Amino acid sequence: MDIETEVRALAERARQASGALAQTTAAQRDAALRGMAAALRDQAPAILEANAADVDAARQAGTAEPLVDRLALDAGRVEAMAAALEDLAALPDPLGRVLEQRTLPNGIELTRVAVPLGVVAVVYEARPNVTADAAGICLKSGNACVLRGGSLAARSNEVIADVLADAAVAAGLPEGAVTAITTTDRAATDALMQLHGVVDVLIPRGGAGLIRHCVECSKVPVIETGTGNCHVYVHSSADLDKARAIVLNAKCRRYGVCNAAETLLVDEQVAPDFLPETLAALGERGVTVHADERAMEAAADLDVDIVPATEEDWATEYLGPHLAVRCVTGVDEAVDHVNRYGTRHSEAIVAEDAQATEAFLNRVDAAAVYANASTAFTDGGEFGLGAEIGISTQKLHARGPFALEALTSSKYVLRGDGQVRA
Amino acid sequence: MDIETEVRALAERARQASGALAQTTAAQRDAALRGMAAALRDQAPAILEANAADVDAARQAGTAEPLVDRLALDAGRVEAMAAALEDLAALPDPLGRVLEQRTLPNGIELTRVAVPLGVVAVVYEARPNVTADAAGICLKSGNACVLRGGSLAARSNEVIADVLADAAVAAGLPEGAVTAITTTDRAATDALMQLHGVVDVLIPRGGAGLIRHCVECSKVPVIETGTGNCHVYVHSSADLDKARAIVLNAKCRRYGVCNAAETLLVDEQVAPDFLPETLAALGERGVTVHADERAMEAAADLDVDIVPATEEDWATEYLGPHLAVRCVTGVDEAVDHVNRYGTRHSEAIVAEDAQATEAFLNRVDAAAVYANASTAFTDGGEFGLGAEIGISTQKLHARGPFALEALTSSKYVLRGDGQVRA
Repeated sequence: MDIETEVRALAERARQASGALAQTTAAQRDAALRGMAAALRDQAPAILEANAADVDAARQAGTAEPLVDRLALDAGRVEAMAAALEDLAALPDPLGRVLEQRTLPNGIELTRVAVPLGVVAVVYEARPNVTADAAGICLKSGNACVLRGGSLAARSNEVIADVLADAAVAAGLPEGAVTAITTTDRAATDALMQLHGVVDVLIPRGGAGLIRHCVECSKVPVIETGTGNCHVYVHSSADLDKARAIVLNAKCRRYGVCNAAETLLVDEQVAPDFLPETLAALGERGVTVHADERAMEAAADLDVDIVPATEEDWATEYLGPHLAVRCVTGVDEAVDHVNRYGTRHSEAIVAEDAQATEAFLNRVDAAAVYANASTAFTDGGEFGLGAEIGISTQKLHARGPFALEALTSSKYVLRGDGQVRA
Repeated sequence: MDIETEVRALAERARQASGALAQTTAAQRDAALRGMAAALRDQAPAILEANAADVDAARQAGTAEPLVDRLALDAGRVEAMAAALEDLAALPDPLGRVLEQRTLPNGIELTRVAVPLGVVAVVYEARPNVTADAAGICLKSGNACVLRGGSLAARSNEVIADVLADAAVAAGLPEGAVTAITTTDRAATDALMQLHGVVDVLIPRGGAGLIRHCVECSKVPVIETGTGNCHVYVHSSADLDKARAIVLNAKCRRYGVCNAAETLLVDEQVAPDFLPETLAALGERGVTVHADERAMEAAADLDVDIVPATEEDWATEYLGPHLAVRCVTGVDEAVDHVNRYGTRHSEAIVAEDAQATEAFLNRVDAAAVYANASTAFTDGGEFGLGAEIGISTQKLHARGPFALEALTSSKYVLRGDGQVRA
């Protein structure tokens, strides 16, 4: 069987399952999630054994240590996967919500209700815990899932997916509800992306390269996630202590996350007051500053690692201990810069002036815009959404952190008593 | 300039306009819509002159008369275009709606508000009135539009788009808010579909071939519209008079529309009672019946044009005076048939039995499911949505008839007083 045929057969099996899954009750699906959690705990030794083999192979192949860390599981991480499934089971059912209800003039009762999307494909990279997270989120929302993890974690993913699929079936969910593509043949991912009409949505979870590849190649609708070239703009009216705390938090809380700030914009009037202490604090934390000329001047006497910023810096998501810094003449230049170089993820202004604040919040085009708070809050948990699937940087269907409701569609149900249209 | 460069330049101009357009007030946009309506009336002679040239050229090229009819404008059709813009102006603003609002535990005020999508591309075929409809719907919802009409209507579309664009600018909207691609070079449509990041969504309005081409080739997210292989299922418990009226309405009201029924499913217990009179009535209206063996028996003595149904008939959207008819053993077989062959558009059951009705409504996977009413009601106007853009047969972003709200996205606005994340 060639790889296209094999992937199609797996996806068709998930499609079959999706029909039955859409008819299950929330109680059945929640019981399955708890059963899956228990099975992960029971089978932890087998999972850890497979994972150890993945980690050995990765190290032997010379994989960088941060990537090996993402790949590696231990008892605590397996327990966290199980606990996350139990947390999902405790969340409200996203299905069956009545989104609209009215009686049409002709007497037909119209109701729009939330229904599953159907088959959700999740394509991800080295983290094997995504296998459990994605399966759980899909089942909770009544969707069959087709999971396609990275080849580095192939052994771990296969064991985890088997454990989850068996537990789901044991709990009465249909065969195929949890489907994993475990071949290490890279063509399988491309084959999956061709299955328009079988797979309803494809969600890539990973780096910019993976996401771009999916957007360019997929015939299945994609929800783009995660690239974040985020800015903090310090307006001349800012409380500079708040501004400093926000910049340090947005940049240094975690470097490798999409909601981290990558560029600091500062009104030139306050740059001499604001920058020296701020850049010094960044320097103490090991952050290299890439500064434009005006910012460079403000930092001339500091013992900080500063390099001149290039055009490329403004467009770069460092995901590391680097920060681009630029002085601007005011909110107009700041908004123009953000809309030109940003990735429409998360953007913050620090200002006490209400007019500048509103101008920034209105005119910046991004999933999340902040006044006087850190971009680090862009996160499903922080926003109170429960289990997050990702952070959408597109405008269709879901924008910003998205969760269970984004894995639903809707259906118009119309009840009449013989109405025909004139 | 090559065609890719030309199309990109036009789309970039629309993108520029979209930023300013998102900042306009509803009153400004509504005034522009009324100005556009007035301009269409003023410029009706020029529009009709261009259209006459299109019609002549189409006839000389041997274009089929129904297509020429779709292409042809007259004073009444131009007036209808103008009136539709005025109707849009009178609808509520879809922007700025507060979709969520809450205070996070850390004190940040979170608001999710409706914002424009940005740049909407509409690709359509022969009807020049779509130029005005699409431009109006996009502007009403604060989006810049890139309009790509069929080459048959190129002269008409160019004049209409110029009239609309000039009127929009005269009313204070930004240049580029209404952008049309009027070259007859077919490569322009494919070039438009590559502009991921410049165009936010592409909406094809036309036949199945156009829609499939967009789904397969577009890197810009697509909202699929309109293919409808719709079914009416007559359950054994049906009121047969209601059932007959619904079948005749769903099939014969208009043949060329996507909500027309293409297959009739009948429980075999009631087929002998139901089919003879129903098929005779269809025959009187000139409908050819494509029947399976069991249905064929029920109609043996009728003077009706009946041909044996083939596998292909079940999957065909006739868009004409043909109806496939199949006898089934009950709701399970009916649901399986619909989910196998349907296009997830509109599906109806006629039944008095509540259990059968609920089984059908729950288990059929379609944008609109009906009990005891005609599929012909699937329409934005009938559903009370106001101006309809199309009928989505996909599950992402919009499903079923969709209107102004489907041309919006959302934005999280977060107001803090210095919060940073732990």
